[in-house]
This record gives sequence, C-alpha cells and structure tokens, in this order.
Amino acid sequence: VESHGVAHLSDFYVGRIRAGRVNPTPEVRVVQESPAGATIDGDNGLGFVAGHIGMEKAIEKARTTGVGMVSVRNSTHYGPGFYYAMLALPHDMLGFSMTTAGNIVVPPGGTTRSYGSNVIAFAAPTREAPFVLDMATSVVAGGKFEIARRRGRPVPEAWGLDAEGQPIASDPNLYFQGGGILPLGGSTALGAWKGFGLALMVDALAGALSDGGASTVLPSPRASHFFAAVRIDAFTTREAFLDRMEEMKAKLRSAPRQAGALPLTFAGEPEATLEAKRRRDGVPLHPAVIAALRQMCGEVGIEYDL
Amino acid sequence: VESHGVAHLSDFYVGRIRAGRVNPTPEVRVVQESPAGATIDGDNGLGFVAGHIGMEKAIEKARTTGVGMVSVRNSTHYGPGFYYAMLALPHDMLGFSMTTAGNIVVPPGGTTRSYGSNVIAFAAPTREAPFVLDMATSVVAGGKFEIARRRGRPVPEAWGLDAEGQPIASDPNLYFQGGGILPLGGSTALGAWKGFGLALMVDALAGALSDGGASTVLPSPRASHFFAAVRIDAFTTREAFLDRMEEMKAKLRSAPRQAGALPLTFAGEPEATLEAKRRRDGVPLHPAVIAALRQMCGEVGIEYDL
Repeated sequence: VESHGVAHLSDFYVGRIRAGRVNPTPEVRVVQESPAGATIDGDNGLGFVAGHIGMEKAIEKARTTGVGMVSVRNSTHYGPGFYYAMLALPHDMLGFSMTTAGNIVVPPGGTTRSYGSNVIAFAAPTREAPFVLDMATSVVAGGKFEIARRRGRPVPEAWGLDAEGQPIASDPNLYFQGGGILPLGGSTALGAWKGFGLALMVDALAGALSDGGASTVLPSPRASHFFAAVRIDAFTTREAFLDRMEEMKAKLRSAPRQAGALPLTFAGEPEATLEAKRRRDGVPLHPAVIAALRQMCGEVGIEYDL
Repeated sequence: VESHGVAHLSDFYVGRIRAGRVNPTPEVRVVQESPAGATIDGDNGLGFVAGHIGMEKAIEKARTTGVGMVSVRNSTHYGPGFYYAMLALPHDMLGFSMTTAGNIVVPPGGTTRSYGSNVIAFAAPTREAPFVLDMATSVVAGGKFEIARRRGRPVPEAWGLDAEGQPIASDPNLYFQGGGILPLGGSTALGAWKGFGLALMVDALAGALSDGGASTVLPSPRASHFFAAVRIDAFTTREAFLDRMEEMKAKLRSAPRQAGALPLTFAGEPEATLEAKRRRDGVPLHPAVIAALRQMCGEVGIEYDL
C-alpha cells in the first residue's frame, strides 16, 4: 500500500521521533484488565507498537472468553487500520480496529475542521478473499486530496469546504489552505449526521474509554485506538459462518448491474488482488518518497540501500 | 417515536402473527455460550422478545467479564435499534445494537434492491443527554420515503433509484414502484462503498455469526440481530469517561457555525428533547394508524380503548 508505511517513514515516523514528538523507546503497559477487556497506555511511542500489542491482547482475551476488547491511550499514528483487524483472521476470529485521526473534518453545519477522520476497520474470513472494511468516517480520507493535488485533478464538490466554509467546487488546493473534509454522507439531507455520529462513536471507544482523549482534543500525532476480536467458534461453527458469508455474497453478485458497471466486489477483494500483484512486482514509490528517504538516511547517518 | 411500535402494531406485529409469519409463543433459547459471548435462537417470535433477551444477556456477560456480545438468529423486526443499545446505560455500560433489515438497498453499481437497510445503534453515557446513535446504513431508512409520500413532498435526488435503476429525481412514489435506496454515501465517489461495507459488517455480525442468515437471504419479516455491552469501569473510571465525553462535546460546540445554522447537537440530544415533550404531551398518532388499530380490534375481538 504505497500511501502508508514507507511513504510516511521520513516525515511521520522518523521526523516526529527526531522532533521529540514520538517516544522511540516507549514502555507500553496494561493499565487495567478484566477477563474480556484491557486498557493499554502506549507511552507516546509509535502507534504500530501500541496498536500491535493492543490487538494481540484482544485476540488473547477472545481465545479464553470468546470476545476481547482493548482501548489504547497515549499512542500516535498507527498506519492503516486494516492491518490490526486482519491480525484476527489466522485465529478464526473477527477483528475490529478503530483509531482517532487528524482533526480535518467539519461537523454538520460547521465551517472549519474540528474533529478527526476517525477510522473503522473490520475483518471477517470468507472462503475467498477475506471481507476487510477499512474506512475513514469522513467522505474521503485526507490522502485523497493529496493525490488529487499531486496529479493536478479536480475533486468532486461534496468532498469538503474551503477556509470560508464554502463548498470546494473542484480545486484540491483549497483543502490545504485551511479547508476541511465533510462527514461521510456529505450533506445533512444525505446522512452527514451518520458520518459524524460514527466518528464520535470511535472517539468514545478509543478516546473516552481509554481516558486518552478524543480526536477533537489530541494534538498531532497523538492518537487513541480501539481493538476487538471475536472468536467465531464461540458463537457458531467456522463452517456455518463461512457458508453464511458465501451465501450473502452469491446473492449480491447475482443481482442485476448498471450497463457498463464492473462486477460487484466486496471490501477487501480489490485489495487482495492488488496485494498479489504487489507481492509479485513490488510496491511503487513516488520519486518524492525516494528522495525523502535518501535525504533522511543522510541526516541520520545510515546507508541508503533500497 | 410515532414511526415505531403502535404505528406498526396492526400490520407488522399483529398482522404477521395472524398470517402465521411470526410465532406468538416462541421458546427463545441460548444455543451456545462462552464467558463473554452467546448465540440466541429467537424461534421466529417477535423481535422485541429475542432482542430484549439478547441485550440483557450481553449486559449480564459484561458485568462479569467486562464485555458481552450476543448474536441472535431466527428473530423478526425488532423495532428501533436505540432501545436495546440504551438498555446498557443504567448499568454504566456502552451498548451496541445491530439488526438486519428489509431488502430495500441497491448495492454500488446495481439497479435493484438486493440487501438490507441494516441498522447500527450505539449508546454511551454523558453528563447531559446520553450519546445515542441509531442509523440505517443506507442514505435514509425506508420510512423517509413513506413520510415524503404521505405528505406529498419531493425527495432529494441522491436517496434512491427507480425500478429501471435510474436516479429518483423527486417523486417518492417511484421508490414504492420497484425502486430502492442507495447505500450511505450515495455515489461511489462520495462513499457508497462505505455504507455498503458497514451494512455487510452488520450482516456478518448478526447474520453469519448467529448462523441465522444475512439480510440478502432472509424473507420479510425475518431478522438477525447483534448486541454488545461494554462495562466502562472495566476500562477506566466512570468519571474519566464522562470527562472525556464532555471535553469532546465542548470542543465541538465551540467551533464556528455556518451563518444561520442551528447550534450543533449530538446524536441522542434532539431525541431526548423530543422524549421530554412526548412524555408531557403524548405521542401523536396519524389518523390512518388510529383507523388501523380500531379495525384490528374489531377483527381480533377486543375492545378499542385508546
């Protein structure tokens, strides 16, 4: 996934560590624990560390009790949400991963960015590619404006507002000049209260339940996370679950399509196809990313050897 | 809430029982159980019965282990989702309630209704009105077309498609003539894959995990449900949780508003205001609802005494 990981290595991760905003040697610890739940303090380290420990703890709980939930405070940007949700799959569990994200979304009726593009990710096995939903609760993630700007392409009108709170008609640069993204749903007539509500649900589960703080109050790059694992055979047999998932997909796939529409896909399928291609051909990196990595290596005194 | 309960008593509930499509004397039973999870079979009774038992079971689990999850199969229409989620609140727990719903939604790129307007409800305490999200994962719930039709009002273009798979420009009657609703997000550019993905997440948790079947395959009025309860003090103190929720709301309330916009509200606040008014003045019933109740009383031989 070229929009994550290495693409942000120099600015998000190494840069923030060098600037003293991320603790490179965190002591991640469990601050409270019950048979099915736990609260973890990430000690302001990289979100990958606290995130991985949090999801593994949820899986460990689910193995014993059937369900595990973990809320994480004092963490930072944890990369793509799907990664943690998918950690549940080899254990025949369903996985949830949620995180507060940057304050780039405008609430319904508002004019300026005031809360996070909070993420909900969910993974469930099927007999084919796993079902993997990974979504920002805003119309789009902030990265979509970045991609449009880099390619010099217009953005659809309902994606966001400019610095004056007016709809961005097409110019992605207006987003970076004090603009913001709209909640999933876009307008109030089309469900913006739902996108706003889902984001605040994430803030409650990740930010309030961990006592770490919601997206609205956390300064970048601080983040709160939430993880859950559900052991399928604590509820039904693995075979029954998979049968029901395939039955659902088959019914939907057989439904009529718009003229010219591609065949229906399910969350995770396009990504599984892309993963196979990337594992074969490699992950393409933008020249700007390579240049940043090369410069970073010079600055921290390690050999550039990609 | 005049759109639920009594409004559907004659057609949804009594009518379906009289037609033999709902079992009036179900033996609701737990078919599988683990310390934090359970699967319940509703024996095709009224969804209120299995739903209430399911949520109470989740709360009972959470009391012991911190978290409880219950998946319910062989149930039917359970009314408003928020009711079950809110059952968690007196226990200082967070509540989740999800259900498969009628097959009235058109998948991305599709032309006909093929899956359910599945519902996600979530309740969390605050120091003011509780935060209570209750949303269909479609742009709107089917009832919004019903209200527009009854009032002779146009509907926004992005709500649904007609029987030919073309956008309904304004006439709500086209929805009832073989049309369907779009997923939350509306178009693929504005997030329809997210609404579609959230609905299928509900199908996985309610329909597949219970082995009851997803919205795509269940004939009306059959439904699968999913409930969860999370004990706040298994993760942090009640006071810390409430502080974080208020801190979040205060930050959002203080953000600038569009000229003429009403003050920002949070999910559950308008409903709490309405509840106070309704408890004082009563719930208004449409003349058609009263006529249906009167007719139903005559048919089943009980006195009409509202």
